[in-house]
Amino acid sequence: MTTKTQSNFEVKDLSLKTQGEKRVSWAAREMDVLAQIKERMRREKPFAGKKIVACVHITTETANLATTLQAGGGECLLIASNPLSTQDDVAAWLVSQGISTFAIKGESIETYQSHVKRAIDFRPDLIVDDGADVVASLLQNYPEEAKKLIGSTEETTTGIVRLKSMEREGALSFPAIAVNDSKTKFMFDNRYGTGQSTLDGILRATNVLLAGKIVVVIGFGWCGKGIAQRARGLGARVIVTEVDPIKALEASMEGFQVSSIEEAAGLGDFFITVTGNRHVVDLKHFQMMKDQAIVCNSGHFDLELNLQALGESADKVTQVRNFVEEYQLGQKRIYVLGEGRLINLAAAEGHPSCVMDLSFSNQALALEHLVKEQGRLENKVHNLPEKIDYELAKLKLVSLGIKIDELSPEMQEYLNSWKIGT
Amino acid sequence: MTTKTQSNFEVKDLSLKTQGEKRVSWAAREMDVLAQIKERMRREKPFAGKKIVACVHITTETANLATTLQAGGGECLLIASNPLSTQDDVAAWLVSQGISTFAIKGESIETYQSHVKRAIDFRPDLIVDDGADVVASLLQNYPEEAKKLIGSTEETTTGIVRLKSMEREGALSFPAIAVNDSKTKFMFDNRYGTGQSTLDGILRATNVLLAGKIVVVIGFGWCGKGIAQRARGLGARVIVTEVDPIKALEASMEGFQVSSIEEAAGLGDFFITVTGNRHVVDLKHFQMMKDQAIVCNSGHFDLELNLQALGESADKVTQVRNFVEEYQLGQKRIYVLGEGRLINLAAAEGHPSCVMDLSFSNQALALEHLVKEQGRLENKVHNLPEKIDYELAKLKLVSLGIKIDELSPEMQEYLNSWKIGT
Amino acid sequence: MTTKTQSNFEVKDLSLKTQGEKRVSWAAREMDVLAQIKERMRREKPFAGKKIVACVHITTETANLATTLQAGGGECLLIASNPLSTQDDVAAWLVSQGISTFAIKGESIETYQSHVKRAIDFRPDLIVDDGADVVASLLQNYPEEAKKLIGSTEETTTGIVRLKSMEREGALSFPAIAVNDSKTKFMFDNRYGTGQSTLDGILRATNVLLAGKIVVVIGFGWCGKGIAQRARGLGARVIVTEVDPIKALEASMEGFQVSSIEEAAGLGDFFITVTGNRHVVDLKHFQMMKDQAIVCNSGHFDLELNLQALGESADKVTQVRNFVEEYQLGQKRIYVLGEGRLINLAAAEGHPSCVMDLSFSNQALALEHLVKEQGRLENKVHNLPEKIDYELAKLKLVSLGIKIDELSPEMQEYLNSWKIGT
Amino acid sequence: MTTKTQSNFEVKDLSLKTQGEKRVSWAAREMDVLAQIKERMRREKPFAGKKIVACVHITTETANLATTLQAGGGECLLIASNPLSTQDDVAAWLVSQGISTFAIKGESIETYQSHVKRAIDFRPDLIVDDGADVVASLLQNYPEEAKKLIGSTEETTTGIVRLKSMEREGALSFPAIAVNDSKTKFMFDNRYGTGQSTLDGILRATNVLLAGKIVVVIGFGWCGKGIAQRARGLGARVIVTEVDPIKALEASMEGFQVSSIEEAAGLGDFFITVTGNRHVVDLKHFQMMKDQAIVCNSGHFDLELNLQALGESADKVTQVRNFVEEYQLGQKRIYVLGEGRLINLAAAEGHPSCVMDLSFSNQALALEHLVKEQGRLENKVHNLPEKIDYELAKLKLVSLGIKIDELSPEMQEYLNSWKIGT
Repeated sequence: MTTKTQSNFEVKDLSLKTQGEKRVSWAAREMDVLAQIKERMRREKPFAGKKIVACVHITTETANLATTLQAGGGECLLIASNPLSTQDDVAAWLVSQGISTFAIKGESIETYQSHVKRAIDFRPDLIVDDGADVVASLLQNYPEEAKKLIGSTEETTTGIVRLKSMEREGALSFPAIAVNDSKTKFMFDNRYGTGQSTLDGILRATNVLLAGKIVVVIGFGWCGKGIAQRARGLGARVIVTEVDPIKALEASMEGFQVSSIEEAAGLGDFFITVTGNRHVVDLKHFQMMKDQAIVCNSGHFDLELNLQALGESADKVTQVRNFVEEYQLGQKRIYVLGEGRLINLAAAEGHPSCVMDLSFSNQALALEHLVKEQGRLENKVHNLPEKIDYELAKLKLVSLGIKIDELSPEMQEYLNSWKIGT
Repeated sequence: MTTKTQSNFEVKDLSLKTQGEKRVSWAAREMDVLAQIKERMRREKPFAGKKIVACVHITTETANLATTLQAGGGECLLIASNPLSTQDDVAAWLVSQGISTFAIKGESIETYQSHVKRAIDFRPDLIVDDGADVVASLLQNYPEEAKKLIGSTEETTTGIVRLKSMEREGALSFPAIAVNDSKTKFMFDNRYGTGQSTLDGILRATNVLLAGKIVVVIGFGWCGKGIAQRARGLGARVIVTEVDPIKALEASMEGFQVSSIEEAAGLGDFFITVTGNRHVVDLKHFQMMKDQAIVCNSGHFDLELNLQALGESADKVTQVRNFVEEYQLGQKRIYVLGEGRLINLAAAEGHPSCVMDLSFSNQALALEHLVKEQGRLENKVHNLPEKIDYELAKLKLVSLGIKIDELSPEMQEYLNSWKIGT
Repeated sequence: MTTKTQSNFEVKDLSLKTQGEKRVSWAAREMDVLAQIKERMRREKPFAGKKIVACVHITTETANLATTLQAGGGECLLIASNPLSTQDDVAAWLVSQGISTFAIKGESIETYQSHVKRAIDFRPDLIVDDGADVVASLLQNYPEEAKKLIGSTEETTTGIVRLKSMEREGALSFPAIAVNDSKTKFMFDNRYGTGQSTLDGILRATNVLLAGKIVVVIGFGWCGKGIAQRARGLGARVIVTEVDPIKALEASMEGFQVSSIEEAAGLGDFFITVTGNRHVVDLKHFQMMKDQAIVCNSGHFDLELNLQALGESADKVTQVRNFVEEYQLGQKRIYVLGEGRLINLAAAEGHPSCVMDLSFSNQALALEHLVKEQGRLENKVHNLPEKIDYELAKLKLVSLGIKIDELSPEMQEYLNSWKIGT
Repeated sequence: MTTKTQSNFEVKDLSLKTQGEKRVSWAAREMDVLAQIKERMRREKPFAGKKIVACVHITTETANLATTLQAGGGECLLIASNPLSTQDDVAAWLVSQGISTFAIKGESIETYQSHVKRAIDFRPDLIVDDGADVVASLLQNYPEEAKKLIGSTEETTTGIVRLKSMEREGALSFPAIAVNDSKTKFMFDNRYGTGQSTLDGILRATNVLLAGKIVVVIGFGWCGKGIAQRARGLGARVIVTEVDPIKALEASMEGFQVSSIEEAAGLGDFFITVTGNRHVVDLKHFQMMKDQAIVCNSGHFDLELNLQALGESADKVTQVRNFVEEYQLGQKRIYVLGEGRLINLAAAEGHPSCVMDLSFSNQALALEHLVKEQGRLENKVHNLPEKIDYELAKLKLVSLGIKIDELSPEMQEYLNSWKIGT
């Protein structure tokens, strides 16, 4: 039932655009900062003549970013960074706005790869990446094309780990902006966005009471912190597992129980992975779990749970509810949510707009920064200048109606002084 | 598109029964206590020869209650207590199990009334009521029929307020069990059930970030306490309004801001009513609200918000998302969720099974109590015996794997003694 | 170094009165409700000609109660309800105000008993009791004297358990008001008062970091709830133990780990008893504890910990800090705080005035109620009328500057109606 | 009553050493990591022949650091970094251990300056500084002496701000280690240490109920975060003020009310400054406060509150309780705690040992690092190597009995890979 043309889009159903438009407008309610940037970019056209590929989750917030880049003069092509995260109504609306979009919820890995190919064939000047898949593909398979690139931006912790590997190996042939490492991104999107939306996804998938349950949060980075905080806020007892001793110590002093995964495996009612690593919940852990344990992932890639090994060991796999699959392991049932893909996007709607406003404002300004500084940035992973970070936070405070203090000249002077008696 | 027969059911679509069955089984996962009661009732048949009407939300948990009553020998007829709370797949499955069910999501008030009439024509021996509508209708319009009734049970705070009015006026012609007033009901269902599911409903309806937002909780009864706790747990600042000074003082010492509705009206990003009263958010309050305020209700009846007055004042009413209607008031937009009906049932799936296990175990035992004590109970509102309450709590602890202490004989003796030196 | 006279006081040192006065005034800052009652009683003299014995903790808040009763025309005699809770400066100041006071911090059990005797010899009309010791002594040893009593009031859960035993046995020969059972008492004093002050006592006694520690709260009544909430608020992981299944279930859904004492014994860094029962932490539990476990009590009597058995098993007992005794059990050290007496009064200053304002306003009004209703109350345990409870809550809200809503006549009418369509 | 000798100490009373010893041992209970370092240093003598000045709070934890440096072969001289923070019993015990100590609780500014002079005359090789006062004095007044220094370490955020000013001006003539900037320091000591101990200090000074009160936390750095979290944990409503927009935004999303100081001034029941800046609460703010507002500081220096201006405007200043001074401003009373000095050290005992274990382990290793790297470090502000930070966290986890996971070789490899399909 896919509407397809040879040229510039591949989406589920164009007639969903009206619903998509309403939902995009709804998201815009809480994206004031991006709206202000859009207005400026509409006047200044920083992306005039530039082709921009964005490989991201096709959500209502992404739509607001895409129209901002378009308003700034960019020619955009969008592909989905995850086969389950596409909102088909949004994809339809994007096409109606003249933005080439290739994304269908539930698309196969082959379709996804064909979309990546389309993106590379588009010959972008700029890439917005989410997990570094397009960039990795480009560098690995089309190194010549990569040389023409002005630069890329990266949305996720996972993608930045990959980009830094590329940088270490000397493979990175253009500057990349670690949008994720802006404080106005990771402190808000990763923590409060992933925190709320992961629990939202779990509730929509299961409708299970969290009060009194044991939730094992695997990974205590910014996403893990947010998830642990929200799970506790819903009444759960939280066990945190980590490989980083400082994070583990912090989790402990935040009042969470901290243990190894093996110790936690037999205790949890829920398990949520957010590590950016592979097979952190492996077959041996599934085998230790209680009957009816519920397991899901909120890390970028769908490899944190070793579902292949689980599937091979299972006597039977049955879908028992939307987004819930039961793996029968002898007398025991394990429930896996959303096929191990990002549960907040598989079963819910992804991060709320309020935090994506900050993240995507960073994206828009990062792309502008790449254009402005073209030729002056090393082929490395860069952070956005701190000044931009502070500026975005200020704008957000204004949009939230929050007034803060400023340092007086005397206070500023005091901070700069060091002498006794000053 | 409704499947209709003249005789014993009216549901949306019988073919939804397979999906309904899966979801009912999923709910049963967390309803161990009721399952144990069902097994006993299957053997003992306490309801043999009895006709039971249940006017409740037609959800997966209700289905587990209905099959328990059926296993106990009862002949059941179910009608929906709320036009938006019916889960059509569950209704279809109930019919497939031989349980007369009259419930269609979104049914009109006329259809609802015809269903109430069907329930009364069924000539029940026992009534499970939720809001006291069937009982009120019976007493008001069919007082003769009412006399045959063994008794009724009531699920909600709202319904009990009504029943006590009936009792005061001498209108109550049978004993009624205030199931809501069992501790294992109100302390868990009303607090943790309504708490989680109300926020779940709001997230599904809006996908808005709660962190940093101001949530005004109107009413600090058990439902309000649960909602306030969960809203805070999701990062919101909570303002509580109350008419009861003791509850207001408690809310304050729990760290919530407490104010009058008028003071709160201009501050809130979200407003949630759970008062059991009428028009607690009235036109004047809507007019004081900030642009884009989001308003919903989680109290039993849909009259806590004065939507009629709001609608009459509005320049325009538009649906902007599922379950979200925008009322344009001059330059200001007010968003009302789920038409002012119980948001946890309109936009989400109602209370999680884990607490309904307790509530509906109370229901099953309350009905059994009415039958056992037939002729010995005054025509008043009764609580279930405390012993039952404690027994249910014990069973639930076992099902959750929690072991607690018991008083030793020495401790018991100490508690009974009062003399110096004992 | 005790200042002693034959007639009407026995306190540590009268010269402490100036410091006592300052501290009593400081407490008065947050006792507005009692201050209003005092002003009224000063005019109305409800206690004219009445002798009042109060056996309570001799604290700054008690001083404010005593002067209220005195202003109301009462002749007061105060004795300490606990040998460690007396604040000697307050006792000195009370004497300076003409209030007979018999209380010395650290007084022996013999001295305490002689003070109880003094209280009985005073031939009171009214008794304010805290733990029911004076009343028990009177009924057990001086039943004739007891008959003259107008009535007594009781401050604690523990005392009410005793009074109800007396009532069941037919031993209670006067009406007793369960001040503790006023909502404005137990919901605030027991929860927020004991909660904060118990943790305050532990911090003063130990200065140990609570973040990340395991605190075992034994008993989840109102005091236990408050302690568990505050321990969590200071970053601890809390384990709750209970004998009541409903309270245990509630603790679990509040997100606390719930277990038997035996399971918890080997896990805790801190143990706090608040059960009102004897030897709830017994030798076998001490023997299971980790090295360096810290144990204390916040229940009324000092028998919740079996310190006698612990002392007999210990190789050595050493005081290692003020209020901290080390019991050496083989290779293991157990630290007991404040000799097992109420830690909030032994090591800190007891409940903050803000809650004692409510509790002692209830006391003053309970005594007035006994006088007004003299001859009309059965010889049972009574609650204060609900109206008084609500009135006190209203006055407290005013003193805190909190404005709440009132039911409109339409709302009141709605609550009283039950018919369909009303 | 001061015991004084011409040569090598100046403390209050040497006879307090026995009590000091007990309290130092008590602190050692939770300082396992430092104890391990001490054992190693006792063998390796990294400080043999080195003179070490430490200008710090003279507390039980400091005593454990000092004996560690002494065990490592260092010759130590201690002076107090704050006139109110000295624990006289600890000072006495230090002297008994052969550690030159110049510190008397309540010492005058002149005495303090004479102690600084003694420290400089001692001609240290290494300086442990707390607020950078000794270093500033040395560089400003004895620049020649400074040149001989191997380096210094700095404990506080405040001191690092000063050191960076020195660095910027080219005044820093030796390497300085920013101990405060180790994650195992600021994430724990500043947050959980200052958090708990500040509230502890406030409770000891006031015994006021926090539940339901409004606490204004001025500054949301790591100390401010900890204080806000603990104040909320004790039931208060917290308002945060900030000058940094990112921190303000974070505070808001953590659910705190955020405003300017001016807006907060009229709302707060308590005000706590932790900004590292001067006169952040100025006369105009005092004038806006409610009657009976309580104000204190937990930032390093006692200049965050403009007490001079307040004193000049006040009609009267009275001490109403230990550590509480009442400033009468017309009809209004403002209560200032601990003379505006660090309230956690003035009224309580400073940071709990559990976090000081980490901070002072960092100190010991920082001094060792300076010695080992002598001649190889630039005259700048340096962080301790990350490896040390992780090592300390690991040791602490072991001492807390917490087991965590490790990356498998496959996981490590995955993190290093970036290519598609790896």
